[in-house]
Amino acid sequence: MRRLGIGLIGTGFMGRAHALAFRNVSAAFELPVQLHLAALADADAERARHCASAWGFERAHGDWQQLIADPGVDLIAITTPNHLHFPMAMAAIAAGKAVYCEKPLAVSLEQADEMRLAAKAAGVVTRVGYNYQHNPMLVLAREMIERGELGRLISFQGEFSEDFMADPALPWSWRCEPSHAGGALADLGSHLLAMARYLVGDIEAVCADSQTVHPQRPASHHNSELRSILVDDQTHALLRFSNGARGTFSSSWLKHGYKNHLSFEISGTLGTLKFDQERLNELQLCKHGQGGFERLLAGPALPGYAAFSPAAGHQLGYNELKTLEVHAVIQACAGHPAPGPDFEEAWQVERLAAAIRVAAQEQRWVAL
Amino acid sequence: MRRLGIGLIGTGFMGRAHALAFRNVSAAFELPVQLHLAALADADAERARHCASAWGFERAHGDWQQLIADPGVDLIAITTPNHLHFPMAMAAIAAGKAVYCEKPLAVSLEQADEMRLAAKAAGVVTRVGYNYQHNPMLVLAREMIERGELGRLISFQGEFSEDFMADPALPWSWRCEPSHAGGALADLGSHLLAMARYLVGDIEAVCADSQTVHPQRPASHHNSELRSILVDDQTHALLRFSNGARGTFSSSWLKHGYKNHLSFEISGTLGTLKFDQERLNELQLCKHGQGGFERLLAGPALPGYAAFSPAAGHQLGYNELKTLEVHAVIQACAGHPAPGPDFEEAWQVERLAAAIRVAAQEQRWVAL
Amino acid sequence: MRRLGIGLIGTGFMGRAHALAFRNVSAAFELPVQLHLAALADADAERARHCASAWGFERAHGDWQQLIADPGVDLIAITTPNHLHFPMAMAAIAAGKAVYCEKPLAVSLEQADEMRLAAKAAGVVTRVGYNYQHNPMLVLAREMIERGELGRLISFQGEFSEDFMADPALPWSWRCEPSHAGGALADLGSHLLAMARYLVGDIEAVCADSQTVHPQRPASHHNSELRSILVDDQTHALLRFSNGARGTFSSSWLKHGYKNHLSFEISGTLGTLKFDQERLNELQLCKHGQGGFERLLAGPALPGYAAFSPAAGHQLGYNELKTLEVHAVIQACAGHPAPGPDFEEAWQVERLAAAIRVAAQEQRWVAL
Amino acid sequence: MRRLGIGLIGTGFMGRAHALAFRNVSAAFELPVQLHLAALADADAERARHCASAWGFERAHGDWQQLIADPGVDLIAITTPNHLHFPMAMAAIAAGKAVYCEKPLAVSLEQADEMRLAAKAAGVVTRVGYNYQHNPMLVLAREMIERGELGRLISFQGEFSEDFMADPALPWSWRCEPSHAGGALADLGSHLLAMARYLVGDIEAVCADSQTVHPQRPASHHNSELRSILVDDQTHALLRFSNGARGTFSSSWLKHGYKNHLSFEISGTLGTLKFDQERLNELQLCKHGQGGFERLLAGPALPGYAAFSPAAGHQLGYNELKTLEVHAVIQACAGHPAPGPDFEEAWQVERLAAAIRVAAQEQRWVAL
Repeated sequence: MRRLGIGLIGTGFMGRAHALAFRNVSAAFELPVQLHLAALADADAERARHCASAWGFERAHGDWQQLIADPGVDLIAITTPNHLHFPMAMAAIAAGKAVYCEKPLAVSLEQADEMRLAAKAAGVVTRVGYNYQHNPMLVLAREMIERGELGRLISFQGEFSEDFMADPALPWSWRCEPSHAGGALADLGSHLLAMARYLVGDIEAVCADSQTVHPQRPASHHNSELRSILVDDQTHALLRFSNGARGTFSSSWLKHGYKNHLSFEISGTLGTLKFDQERLNELQLCKHGQGGFERLLAGPALPGYAAFSPAAGHQLGYNELKTLEVHAVIQACAGHPAPGPDFEEAWQVERLAAAIRVAAQEQRWVAL
Repeated sequence: MRRLGIGLIGTGFMGRAHALAFRNVSAAFELPVQLHLAALADADAERARHCASAWGFERAHGDWQQLIADPGVDLIAITTPNHLHFPMAMAAIAAGKAVYCEKPLAVSLEQADEMRLAAKAAGVVTRVGYNYQHNPMLVLAREMIERGELGRLISFQGEFSEDFMADPALPWSWRCEPSHAGGALADLGSHLLAMARYLVGDIEAVCADSQTVHPQRPASHHNSELRSILVDDQTHALLRFSNGARGTFSSSWLKHGYKNHLSFEISGTLGTLKFDQERLNELQLCKHGQGGFERLLAGPALPGYAAFSPAAGHQLGYNELKTLEVHAVIQACAGHPAPGPDFEEAWQVERLAAAIRVAAQEQRWVAL
Repeated sequence: MRRLGIGLIGTGFMGRAHALAFRNVSAAFELPVQLHLAALADADAERARHCASAWGFERAHGDWQQLIADPGVDLIAITTPNHLHFPMAMAAIAAGKAVYCEKPLAVSLEQADEMRLAAKAAGVVTRVGYNYQHNPMLVLAREMIERGELGRLISFQGEFSEDFMADPALPWSWRCEPSHAGGALADLGSHLLAMARYLVGDIEAVCADSQTVHPQRPASHHNSELRSILVDDQTHALLRFSNGARGTFSSSWLKHGYKNHLSFEISGTLGTLKFDQERLNELQLCKHGQGGFERLLAGPALPGYAAFSPAAGHQLGYNELKTLEVHAVIQACAGHPAPGPDFEEAWQVERLAAAIRVAAQEQRWVAL
Repeated sequence: MRRLGIGLIGTGFMGRAHALAFRNVSAAFELPVQLHLAALADADAERARHCASAWGFERAHGDWQQLIADPGVDLIAITTPNHLHFPMAMAAIAAGKAVYCEKPLAVSLEQADEMRLAAKAAGVVTRVGYNYQHNPMLVLAREMIERGELGRLISFQGEFSEDFMADPALPWSWRCEPSHAGGALADLGSHLLAMARYLVGDIEAVCADSQTVHPQRPASHHNSELRSILVDDQTHALLRFSNGARGTFSSSWLKHGYKNHLSFEISGTLGTLKFDQERLNELQLCKHGQGGFERLLAGPALPGYAAFSPAAGHQLGYNELKTLEVHAVIQACAGHPAPGPDFEEAWQVERLAAAIRVAAQEQRWVAL
């Protein structure tokens, strides 16, 4: 069986989420490869060593370039701040290695374009961490849509709202910088755009409205000097899908009461489907002829769920969606058909976000 | 005590709802007038007589002009098909009588404009039946907003969806005619626009997208010949409020699973409020500092509720919202300050709907 | 058409609810009688006159015995404090008049027994105000059960909880007196027992546990002297139904968060049904083969609902359940088959409550 | 740092859940020991080898006695069928090793008693897999109760219902055997009893009612011969807690619509708390002074949650509760104070279940 060496860059929240997922995946699935947690890199070499040991990686690197060059590493997992995705992914592609990059793909559409073209030219496997679409309930949603259970799709209404920036006294951070892909649209909204494409399909035109509700924030927790904020706090948009469906989009990080409200309602001529990431194991479905919405609960009839539990109602958590994503990445590396957005698809998402940005700035419909 | 004679035109669903409300109002409230259910009119004189007797009206007229001329009638309640609102209201105004007209005010913006100007010139009391805003929970919502409990308003997301036209085999009806103010936007959406204005305020620009999903329907239940449908089945829009809040709007009569889903979420810098007409006795509120949404249930601390029950949890129904509306109309007729949209406000709603129509047709933002 | 003269005793909350219902019923239904709101009685003659005028009753009496003797009165509606139900109903029966009495039927099982026997001997129509079972959604629930849609019934779990006595500083009131049928079991629980019988059937044995959580309360709002409380604040019980179903019962007036939580879950071999009076227009149903609970919303397919609205989602309120009850009373007076508990059935409910009281006192199962 | 060798017996669903948890725990936590996945045992030696390799265990044994004797094994995790818990745990205790046994502790109260006494005499660390109480939201619930946020506890109403045996055509299995601790009470109800003790405290008396709704089932999927079923399909009970709280209990595996409905409502003089395992990341709380229930969503303020995610709304799944349990077991093995039921506590749960069984059989209250 082929050996697949994993090289993970980054040891923050997302680095650990990747590590947990790579550890879980071989217990949850029969893998088509021999998985090696080969190397972990962090700019802080000491931290790299500590995490490598705790998380079961064989080697540690204090320099990501060393990790990419490491001959035992076949797949590069990138979990660093957004502005580093481009140089790291480009180097990995240049080295002919597979790349599994966290979202967003890049901090500019130009970078994203360059990355997808480079990956295509090099013929390497790529995947981007829009992990919510690995949720077995959303795989089911897509299958239901593909089987025509909702009929012809006519409407998509999506919202991704959280409250983590609601306090205007919260200081500036990298999330407030356009050059780091900050803002509610890029940070949260891109997940929703990826979901809209995954479930409904291509979007051919958008119109939008964006606001910076709190145009200044303290420079830091210790420095009350005010710093200008150039990214959006909330964005609302209209979407026109190529298949004729129409809809609304909204994204906010100021909305009290929401923690992870990636939600949507998809309506077709034969039924309506609702989802909220805050209850990720549930779908609400009303088909033609039913009296109202029926709550569907994730269970082992869904392969992605069965990998973790034989009993309905046990529920998957966020980290298991990550394990499902990692499983798909490994399948792709092994040459098997596997779901999940590649660089080409992630570029489409960036393109869409960029069009929304233009539509908001110029207050007009923008075609894609 | 002054006598107030009621003249009701129409004996359909809405006529009966008015009758029930006029009968209820004197048991529910101490009225500032002596209420007389003076006359009922229907083009079918026999039906007028029958309903007058069953509903407790003193006289019946087979001709609405007689009813308006009836000297015992002070307030004209209009519940006829939409295209008759204009001639009836204009005649009532000309007779110097108060007018309580069902929504929409008229079947064209020009008519609506003429009506509000005539009413203003005549100085008569007018009210339009956007009855949902008489819901005590929404009166509370407005008070909370006015007291600043949500902080500065930043977002409104509203949807009014039902499913009663979802079946493409459902035949054409007057609701499918632009000249009768048909379509999802006019029929349902206007309620939502009135609500947005009631709770958030003036809207200064809109952008929109409308579709006729089923462009043909059978001519009638007995005639399968197809007839072209010229009104919208669904409309999505972006809203810009004068106070800086932004939002989305959607209206559909094709959405499986919804029966009366007039719903919204209003978010401000200090909190978020949610409502769904399908659970009209509830609000969901999350204020800054709370862990999540709290369900508030209507109770007798709200005057409009206390009029019907001294105990929380008893719940009001649709017809009681109508009774509250009728109470406000009577208060206004008695010269007391009383809530509820008059012809001026209803014209603003029509203007907004018209702007949405233009925005959808011309695919551009339209300023008001 | 036969004339039916209504005599209403009592002008409190429940008196007004009756008045509203008797006013509504002729607009909502085609009645088989000519309804006359003949007379209203209150011990306070001035108040009787005022309310009679406001509510549309022809005459006022300052003495309930006069009202019963009033030859224009055919049906006596009793809405006075509980301890007066017995003398009033017995007098009405003695006068050969129909009686519509609020729940509970009486303040002792002995009284209740005497009342049902007297009514049976006199052959008069009787009804008792367990109004929740006139809810069209519960009529539907009963029909579904009777049609076998849930299969063989195996479990009933019911709870009626409110919070209106939760504050221990709330003073003593008549509700705290056993001699006035006070206590959570009698005041709230009896509704639930009536519902259990209505939907599931006869109960043949009970076991129970009752507590007075706050054994003393201030004598009044103005007198902080403590008074002993002899009624239950909460009661839990086990129920054995004659048809083999088993279940739990609980009743509390101390439970924070509930305003009218008359709720149950009925489970059978083919499905499960859930209801909560706080959302009285909804049922949750999961039948064999469904993935989860489906929310059913009241609509005009239900005759009781159609009487008030032709459109689903409009929702009925508490007062409309009362109107439906009044309609059934009138039907019964007109000699038509009509639902609703009579004195015999209400005595069965009292018997059941008494058995629960014995079971709690003696800490043992009690057979009925 | 001390070495802790794990020996896992069993490779079924629960064996794999343990394996996943032991793999996760060192990435999620800084452990006080050096963890070794030392050995895996299964009666099928080939399967033991395969799973050991897939799940990262160093050695495989075809015989559980070898595993217990393995000098590299310090902690024995038992995930085999229930009737094997006793011999395995007793052997492990005799070998002076720590034991982490799945629930139920044993298949008879006598066995359970012997096990807890042996463990106490040997002074070994023990834990039993009532994993739901490691849910950070329930740790929070217990802390809130201990801090007095609900006031004096007065009521507990718990239900654990599923539907996996609802189909009467489902054949007999070990779950239908009293000698394997089968039945709704033992299989599901014991979780609820453990939860009631964890959150509310000691129970001093019970009364109960149990039924076998389907007294015969086919012998197997391939053998339609009917076999008698001697265990309960549903059990309802009344509970009296030592602290004065009272309540109801119910357990069923026949209830359509439920997949993992371990749910409860705890009410005190100052508030009410609700939970449903089907939404394990949520609590519903209504404190004195609040208008209604507020939904609390799990987040990183809870240590058990923070171990897996820094962001609220990400949600934990069942397997992470297992990882939290394993973490507690490891802490206990390292000599640190750590939550989770030991054999003594699990015996108390068995004692309670046995008392419920007696109460149901003898139709009387049983004191503990």
